[in-house]
Amino acid sequence: MPNPTAAMLVIGDEILSGRTRDANMYHLAGKLTEVGLDLREVRVVSDDRGAIVEAVQALAAAHDHVFTSGGIGPTHDDITADCIAAAFGAEIDVRADALAILKQHYATTGIELNEARLRMARIPAGATLIDNPVSAAPGFTLANVHVMAGVPSVFQAMVEALLPQLVGGAPLVSETLRVLRGEGDIAGPLGALAEEYPTLSLGSYPFQQKNGRYGSNVVIRGSDAALVRQAKQRLAETFRE
Amino acid sequence: MPNPTAAMLVIGDEILSGRTRDANMYHLAGKLTEVGLDLREVRVVSDDRGAIVEAVQALAAAHDHVFTSGGIGPTHDDITADCIAAAFGAEIDVRADALAILKQHYATTGIELNEARLRMARIPAGATLIDNPVSAAPGFTLANVHVMAGVPSVFQAMVEALLPQLVGGAPLVSETLRVLRGEGDIAGPLGALAEEYPTLSLGSYPFQQKNGRYGSNVVIRGSDAALVRQAKQRLAETFRE
Repeated sequence: MPNPTAAMLVIGDEILSGRTRDANMYHLAGKLTEVGLDLREVRVVSDDRGAIVEAVQALAAAHDHVFTSGGIGPTHDDITADCIAAAFGAEIDVRADALAILKQHYATTGIELNEARLRMARIPAGATLIDNPVSAAPGFTLANVHVMAGVPSVFQAMVEALLPQLVGGAPLVSETLRVLRGEGDIAGPLGALAEEYPTLSLGSYPFQQKNGRYGSNVVIRGSDAALVRQAKQRLAETFRE
Repeated sequence: MPNPTAAMLVIGDEILSGRTRDANMYHLAGKLTEVGLDLREVRVVSDDRGAIVEAVQALAAAHDHVFTSGGIGPTHDDITADCIAAAFGAEIDVRADALAILKQHYATTGIELNEARLRMARIPAGATLIDNPVSAAPGFTLANVHVMAGVPSVFQAMVEALLPQLVGGAPLVSETLRVLRGEGDIAGPLGALAEEYPTLSLGSYPFQQKNGRYGSNVVIRGSDAALVRQAKQRLAETFRE
């Protein structure tokens, strides 16, 4: 039986103008090859409603899976979610499950959940959410289209959450610990814990706090939920000291 | 008046499998922005005849210019030239002008012009050649489609030869001097000559000789043909010493 086929749609004027060099295509191509999905085509289009809708419909009809990258942030030109809904004739509005994720995240970080950020909770009816352990705002899957962020660290984390579900591997669960220390301070304990838990994957995603200091979201992944929680608990105790 | 629109078609399994990271899209996007062509869409397809023909026809119908990258080398999976001909219903065969270029190049380098390499002289009827100062085998323009090599140094040299013709700048002429010394040995005299001829652009493309030593193709470009020839003459005398 031939492998399932896949296509990718990269959305963003910044790629087409040459201002930004795309990194997500190369990353996804390698990951799909690893799990046995056959990437047949990539398209890059601008932040243009007609172009996005047309490309999504063409690719979704021709391939088993379509992966998109970009256009799901808080600014006016982030129109991907609405375009995907339009491509499938689905309703779209702020959805309770996505809103709850954003509320919890912004309560923790002390950042205002303003109207612009609320856009990131707009999810088409019928879609399932894709976990974003880096910056909370979720991606989603509607029909055979998987909609993910353009920021490479977030895109990569979403791909890691999604792919095992598509190819029938054991589903991964993830827990995120927000640590208000820079990566240089946490690297030692993190490395020690990674050795203790060889079946888990531990990733660290730095951010800058309001006070200018660095912090890190530490993401712990594995197929054994109890073990993931245990490792998070251990890590939390380590960084409480 | 809006800028003319452009699309790019990247051809190659090695990009879709994640084995190779594409560099040509980012390069072309920046160059097109510089000269005022509006890149609206990029597609990446595999070395598949149906996929290439369909993408070329769709992009050529929708945009003022289409730039392709990849699939014009000597191996069996280099089918781009034949696919472009098919997309436009043009005849294709080994063409005298392209053959003459290859014959001269291989006579100089002492490499056999075998049947595989002859494939690189297959050019559709009605196409005009695009100069390849790096490794001789030409690209071509058929209708509004510009067909170039996938190897980044060759792709970039072809883009440099082509773009001034498309946007109405002064046409550039180029002369290539083959020097059997490595770049480290020629960098000094090359830099001195570049200072003497500020209106010319001098580029150096290294290669390895049969004996294992390095050589360089020095490409001299400018809009004043007499000056370009003069600079080449000066450079040839310098390296004869």
